Amino acid sequence: MTAGPPVIEACRTIRPQILAAQAAGRRVGIVPTMGSLHAGHTSLVEQALAECDDVVVSIFVNPTQFGPHEDFDRYPRNLAADCDLLSRHRVRWVFAPDKSELYPPGHATRVEVTGPAEPFEGRLRPGHFSGVATVVCRLLQAVPANAAYFGAKDWQQTLVIRRMVADLGLPVEVVVCPTVREPDGLALSSRNAYLTPPQRQRARALSIALEQARADWQADRPVTVITAGMTASLETAGITVDYADVVAAETLEPLEDLPPETPAIALIAGRLGETRLIDNLLLPPRGDTAC
Amino acid sequence: MTAGPPVIEACRTIRPQILAAQAAGRRVGIVPTMGSLHAGHTSLVEQALAECDDVVVSIFVNPTQFGPHEDFDRYPRNLAADCDLLSRHRVRWVFAPDKSELYPPGHATRVEVTGPAEPFEGRLRPGHFSGVATVVCRLLQAVPANAAYFGAKDWQQTLVIRRMVADLGLPVEVVVCPTVREPDGLALSSRNAYLTPPQRQRARALSIALEQARADWQADRPVTVITAGMTASLETAGITVDYADVVAAETLEPLEDLPPETPAIALIAGRLGETRLIDNLLLPPRGDTAC
Repeated sequence: MTAGPPVIEACRTIRPQILAAQAAGRRVGIVPTMGSLHAGHTSLVEQALAECDDVVVSIFVNPTQFGPHEDFDRYPRNLAADCDLLSRHRVRWVFAPDKSELYPPGHATRVEVTGPAEPFEGRLRPGHFSGVATVVCRLLQAVPANAAYFGAKDWQQTLVIRRMVADLGLPVEVVVCPTVREPDGLALSSRNAYLTPPQRQRARALSIALEQARADWQADRPVTVITAGMTASLETAGITVDYADVVAAETLEPLEDLPPETPAIALIAGRLGETRLIDNLLLPPRGDTAC
Repeated sequence: MTAGPPVIEACRTIRPQILAAQAAGRRVGIVPTMGSLHAGHTSLVEQALAECDDVVVSIFVNPTQFGPHEDFDRYPRNLAADCDLLSRHRVRWVFAPDKSELYPPGHATRVEVTGPAEPFEGRLRPGHFSGVATVVCRLLQAVPANAAYFGAKDWQQTLVIRRMVADLGLPVEVVVCPTVREPDGLALSSRNAYLTPPQRQRARALSIALEQARADWQADRPVTVITAGMTASLETAGITVDYADVVAAETLEPLEDLPPETPAIALIAGRLGETRLIDNLLLPPRGDTAC
């Protein structure tokens, strides 16, 4: 077993280290996570390592982005296993703050995003993106990194963060990295650990529905037909569909009034028992039949 | 006429200059203003100059902190006069951004503060403190100063900003400077320019009511008596009272359930015709009859 990177718990400790690295001309990247790390996270770490001199991985299960009936309490936590995994990568620091580090006594401030935060997850999980925006804003003050790495699996989250970063002028580059998938297509997610083996089998339907959407899209089928097709195959697999839609990739707006060359994305969210999974796929330009 | 400090309009221009000054070991202070500068502002500038190596004065009439029926359109603006006034002080930069610099196209992010932002001005001016918190957060990204200077005249605003700075971990020291008053006691405010000469005479009632509250407080009169006294003298002067209260200075909570040594403040807001004025006075510890 290799010694992992040092684990830092205090904002007042990590921040001077970041500033010192930057003063020495080093580019610093942060990979914000909620821990329970998997190969999706390590792909973010690897991309950060390729583009930065030093990489921080933050691990914090952020209470404010969970709804009252969501899985905050049972969300998997295993800092030792996470550090062990990160010891196999060239991560310079792990930042694992206590709640009180990021939410001091009497905390009364939220960063609220409208626009891309409103539909889909925003409608189904009130307060979720406010919690995300707030904690990312706070994290980026403690760790004023040059670049922050997020996975495309949480596509809407990346739009919300890019919007907040632009609007507040946070001096960080937001980098969105490709979704990592299991061999059968299931997008990696810490919540996959909740699935029973039969549910895990059925969860393949998410990526299959997205591939079907891409084929339908390339065959120039109407969006209503594509979304009906995704919904039907998810339901056939016993997945309760929260949404299955094709919208503008950058704004999540309906495509109908937009120019045909607007980049599009298929977005789905569904539930297998208690477990809620989301996935998405950027669609190629219409009429482009290349793979 | 002296040449004024250079006026910078772009975030991407001012920020590197601040960082370069700091890299050279210089402490930078910012005095955020809406322009229409008076001796209250220059006292902030002088305190910043006493404590910092370089001082930025930002001038931006922030639309998001005005309600739809407030005075955004008629708020006094005179950048040339402001720069002329600042040329008599050792200000290094004036930062006077366009609206689009601070609110880019598609802007969809607000910083929302509850707690100290809720009563008084928060109740009477919905969205006001969210606008203040948002623009100050944005300004402090463009101008990552070591210290930011605010006037005690807008006492509740200073609490909101301190709360936001603590909660988001913004790396800035918030400095609150004493209110500057006219010889007759009227607190300096850009909005005093709206007053007709007879209104200006009557506006003395605000500071007189606060002094009376202080005397009543030191005479150990009950808060209900003190607030009734303030309200009566304001009304006698023809001022429509929005509020006149004595509360905990740090939280704006009612004093009744708090320890007797809790620092207290008298807060008033009232209207003279179309012009709304606010003022406040920190109260000495109860029973302390020194001046």
